[in-house]
Amino acid sequence: VSTWSYTPPTAFSGAVAGGNLTQLETLALNSRLNVADGHARQEPTAGQMKVIQDLPELFVEASGKPVEELERAAFGAYLRLLGQHSFPTRPGRVLSCYSSSVAMEIVARSLATATDSMALIHPTFDNIPDILKGVGLRLVPLSEADLHHGDLTRIPLTGGVFVTTPNNPTGRVLSEPRLRELALSCASRDEVLVLDTSFRGFDTRAQYDHYAVLEDSGCRWIVIEDTGKLWPTLDLKVGWLVLSEGLGLPVPEVHSDILLGVSPLVLAMLRGFAEDAERGGLAELHRFVAANRELVRSALADVPGVSYPDTGSRGSVERIGLGDRSGMDTWAALQTRNVYALPCGPFFWNDPAEGDHMLRIALARPTPVLTAAVEVIRSVLLGR
Amino acid sequence: VSTWSYTPPTAFSGAVAGGNLTQLETLALNSRLNVADGHARQEPTAGQMKVIQDLPELFVEASGKPVEELERAAFGAYLRLLGQHSFPTRPGRVLSCYSSSVAMEIVARSLATATDSMALIHPTFDNIPDILKGVGLRLVPLSEADLHHGDLTRIPLTGGVFVTTPNNPTGRVLSEPRLRELALSCASRDEVLVLDTSFRGFDTRAQYDHYAVLEDSGCRWIVIEDTGKLWPTLDLKVGWLVLSEGLGLPVPEVHSDILLGVSPLVLAMLRGFAEDAERGGLAELHRFVAANRELVRSALADVPGVSYPDTGSRGSVERIGLGDRSGMDTWAALQTRNVYALPCGPFFWNDPAEGDHMLRIALARPTPVLTAAVEVIRSVLLGR
Repeated sequence: VSTWSYTPPTAFSGAVAGGNLTQLETLALNSRLNVADGHARQEPTAGQMKVIQDLPELFVEASGKPVEELERAAFGAYLRLLGQHSFPTRPGRVLSCYSSSVAMEIVARSLATATDSMALIHPTFDNIPDILKGVGLRLVPLSEADLHHGDLTRIPLTGGVFVTTPNNPTGRVLSEPRLRELALSCASRDEVLVLDTSFRGFDTRAQYDHYAVLEDSGCRWIVIEDTGKLWPTLDLKVGWLVLSEGLGLPVPEVHSDILLGVSPLVLAMLRGFAEDAERGGLAELHRFVAANRELVRSALADVPGVSYPDTGSRGSVERIGLGDRSGMDTWAALQTRNVYALPCGPFFWNDPAEGDHMLRIALARPTPVLTAAVEVIRSVLLGR
Repeated sequence: VSTWSYTPPTAFSGAVAGGNLTQLETLALNSRLNVADGHARQEPTAGQMKVIQDLPELFVEASGKPVEELERAAFGAYLRLLGQHSFPTRPGRVLSCYSSSVAMEIVARSLATATDSMALIHPTFDNIPDILKGVGLRLVPLSEADLHHGDLTRIPLTGGVFVTTPNNPTGRVLSEPRLRELALSCASRDEVLVLDTSFRGFDTRAQYDHYAVLEDSGCRWIVIEDTGKLWPTLDLKVGWLVLSEGLGLPVPEVHSDILLGVSPLVLAMLRGFAEDAERGGLAELHRFVAANRELVRSALADVPGVSYPDTGSRGSVERIGLGDRSGMDTWAALQTRNVYALPCGPFFWNDPAEGDHMLRIALARPTPVLTAAVEVIRSVLLGR
């Protein structure tokens, strides 16, 4: 007798033999030339090292303070840094999570209690569609063209619209007028608007006050804020769930099933990183990423067929158009030389073929690592 | 038009007005006299302070090492400390998570792809049934009496059996012979055996080599190991998912949807805490918890009707039988005096009335905090 009927999950029948993007990133974790994941792996700056040196004092300080106070200080410093001055302050409207993906899981489980479908930006990092599908939601792809320029009334009606802005991997930013239009559309169609703004720290164009726009629109909304992509904190991070009034979803309940709270030490440390960023660290980070982007583009300048589909991107990842080379073949060839990037097929979760001829590489790396990785990429692309 | 049909989740129609146990714990977070949650909130010992002082050096060390190596060192040190010498070492059989509840969520989502029901120990902390129910599983209660002494062939056949050992809040430990029986029963019935051993660090009787028993049985199994209850690390912790061969569940895939990995700094720090525990810190912790348990029992010795249902418990929480007083009323009366404990009804997830006349208090607190809290509990129970 058996009550089991195991079949591999649909998330696994994707384009890439061997797994999803995170599994490809896992392969890269122990390689020095890992330009696969979008985590912040650059060297800490002098200002950031000061915060790291202070960890023992921060531990003692965090032990003695109410966690509510540490939470408010970290969240406030982070959101003000990124121009989000109208963020909510009422208890229960901001929930701390271990990461943006844990926040995502909580959102997905909450949505699934109330709807069976969502519109989701296409492309985007594949763990977002996989989590949403994993809790049973049916997904309608929303192309970047339609999101930014299309007729919003023609998006099929679902339980809500999920947008990553700036998007990963394209770096495209939802403009303020377009966010307003989208939020008003969601309000009139009674759809929940979910924004994942994990990469907004890299791009000042994504730092207009989203909360003012959202509050004005009258729609129901959720924003996932994430400190995890910005600073080299060895993955000590927080994902915040920020919720509209009258959301009508059991987000606080599902959150309480998963966690009581995040580490007070992480909150105290992130406040320190945010204050350093305010004192010039953020501008320094922007210069660092821009220089690394330029480094990649120069190093590959003489490779025939190479292009950069995301000309305006300021994010910490960069897509490289490979001409008629296959992304998977290039990924595999790089792997044999111990360089790990990501093929872009899986980002196009509804049509992997659209990403077939592109690679994504991470820019948040020490410059020598990036230089060495790009040198190998250059050789492989030149067929050497 | 609306595609929404929101109804409050079933997890919320429980016995306690106002929420689940974690939500009651949240109310306590900013109170000095918080004896609600089971997190480790005692003062760090001198040996532990040494590790905390080393955090900046550990940060630099962790930055320079492959995460696989840090993971193996932390997991190995922790499991050997707790007598688990036969733990698996093959890649893919140990997955690091941010916490035991995140591990739990991943297990639940994986189980739900393959079965629609589980047997679950009764009582246990209510986020376990809430997570399992939240992904759509039907639960069959397995009483402690049946688990420890009943005829295992009479447990209704489901997709698997979930056991917390030592249990929370009762502290009851599944003995080695009984684990063997249960594992063999699961093997013959093709059920997955899931063990949550989060509290095993407190009780040497739960430190026999579970992995040897599980491997011998031939059943499919999952163990959730958790560093989070043991040491005052300000909630920097890891929950490990340890998997049998041939599990036939998409645990690695769901894990990769939620995270790439935990912080290397947390891994390095936990290795330090485990080494300190090995050098005598664990025995010191056991003495500390035993002394705090004795403190509670002496302070309440002259209160009529009070009893201790878990006479043999060595865990860091203690149930107090209240005679004919109601747990909820007592909880509410304590709250008006700023002391936060937990009423035990919600632990009995299938029959809250069974826990009506009990309170759970946390012992992993600085002794002065516990002394002050118990003094208030004494007054309230004496009707003063």
